[in-house]
Amino acid sequence: MDYSQLFSNIKRKKSFLCIGLDTDYQNIPKFLNENKNPVFDFNKHIIDKTASFCVAYKPNIAFYEACGAAGWMNLQMTVSYIREKYPDIFIIADAKRADIGNSSKMYAKAFFEEMDFDAVTVNPYMGEDSISPFFAYKNKWVIVLALTSNPGATNFQYTLDSNSNLRLFERVIKESIRIGNIENLMFVVGATKAEMLSDIRKIIPDHFLLIPGIGAQGGSLNDVAKLGLNKNCGLLVNSSRNIIYADATDQFAVRAGEEAQKIQAEMGVLLKQFGQI
Amino acid sequence: MDYSQLFSNIKRKKSFLCIGLDTDYQNIPKFLNENKNPVFDFNKHIIDKTASFCVAYKPNIAFYEACGAAGWMNLQMTVSYIREKYPDIFIIADAKRADIGNSSKMYAKAFFEEMDFDAVTVNPYMGEDSISPFFAYKNKWVIVLALTSNPGATNFQYTLDSNSNLRLFERVIKESIRIGNIENLMFVVGATKAEMLSDIRKIIPDHFLLIPGIGAQGGSLNDVAKLGLNKNCGLLVNSSRNIIYADATDQFAVRAGEEAQKIQAEMGVLLKQFGQI
Repeated sequence: MDYSQLFSNIKRKKSFLCIGLDTDYQNIPKFLNENKNPVFDFNKHIIDKTASFCVAYKPNIAFYEACGAAGWMNLQMTVSYIREKYPDIFIIADAKRADIGNSSKMYAKAFFEEMDFDAVTVNPYMGEDSISPFFAYKNKWVIVLALTSNPGATNFQYTLDSNSNLRLFERVIKESIRIGNIENLMFVVGATKAEMLSDIRKIIPDHFLLIPGIGAQGGSLNDVAKLGLNKNCGLLVNSSRNIIYADATDQFAVRAGEEAQKIQAEMGVLLKQFGQI
Repeated sequence: MDYSQLFSNIKRKKSFLCIGLDTDYQNIPKFLNENKNPVFDFNKHIIDKTASFCVAYKPNIAFYEACGAAGWMNLQMTVSYIREKYPDIFIIADAKRADIGNSSKMYAKAFFEEMDFDAVTVNPYMGEDSISPFFAYKNKWVIVLALTSNPGATNFQYTLDSNSNLRLFERVIKESIRIGNIENLMFVVGATKAEMLSDIRKIIPDHFLLIPGIGAQGGSLNDVAKLGLNKNCGLLVNSSRNIIYADATDQFAVRAGEEAQKIQAEMGVLLKQFGQI
């Protein structure tokens, strides 16, 4: 999916919501466990009830990997299901991968060839040649971790470089925009670090940002929108647990849909307020 | 496996060789492709001919993931095969994972519960809570990326922190040794950065280091041993492509064994020279 398609989906759906499919097989309603592929079935029901309120899904690969090969099977089925039934949805592999060049190439293959993801999150610690192989695919996106939403973000990401006088997350952004452009590169900026969005927007006014951390992790949608929206929206805001685990009964999918709709309604108001729809 | 078992295996086998099972299905001898699980079969043959010369195997997860669920199946079979047939071998998941705490917990589950790896490589960019969950397992090891062997290592890992006057990879080491100890924590230091080993040994004289980058990437075993060996060896030196792709005929495993034996012989000399055997 390209930049203009993504923005056009956002306008049409009045939503920049990304739903995190962090599906823990131990957390899904018990009655699903009688099925052959409970994780896929859970996802399918959630997707059917939420797809009209979001523009993106983001399976966190850790939750699938925890079940080994069977987990990967559920992941592959989930991606295929979204791709076939909801072709306008942007699908993000939240994988946080990166390795030396020839290994990163294999990770890119996993997410862009073996599965049909639109984007993959990558970790910048190993530098340019660990990120570059992900850019080899047309209309696919690389989402580089800049400032993450977790407490440990403060350990290294703010490291003030004595040469450039930039913080590490700013250097990551500056180096990455030499490799990618607004059509194939986004950044992760945690909603819990919303106050940093103005600084970040000065460096990258036009790039899309993927914002995790609203809901369970405590970030605020209003703050994020106020500081992060750009002229083409430029935001994908993720919510996972608050939506997919809204209810543990046989009404779990309906309730997930209601939660997604609530956020979508707030996003619609914000998009209007900032003159984008 | 604990620290003393690992060192005792090194002394007995006169080797601190780790063999990287970076098995690319496109690079294995063609005649294996007629088999049902060519990647596993390739690994099995390589393992049988090299196990007496090494103390560790290190499958790089990227190469398995590139084949989706089928790749994971081959990975699981490989780990089980080593565990059952060669129980004294240390098995490293070269996964370079890490995410927010509840996701890292799932990655730890994947490698330490779903599969029986001894160690997993982790990426420190997201900080303490992204690494901690991997330490929850007795006799399992966390191998934190400090200074990697690839060209991109220079992009961020040397960032000189204006507060502490330490480079980023040194800060990563110093923060990590507050979480783990010599019994459960190692660091990746690329052989291509051997000149940094003396600086690193000043901070962590007793920890094991996993050293990739000899062979195909150009690092020297002698330099690494001279600067990195400590009183309990303290090194696992990895070689992948030079060993597993030494030959593409039906003699591939025999030739891999010969390559591994060559390195083991050099390591035996070095261990003797430094008074460890």
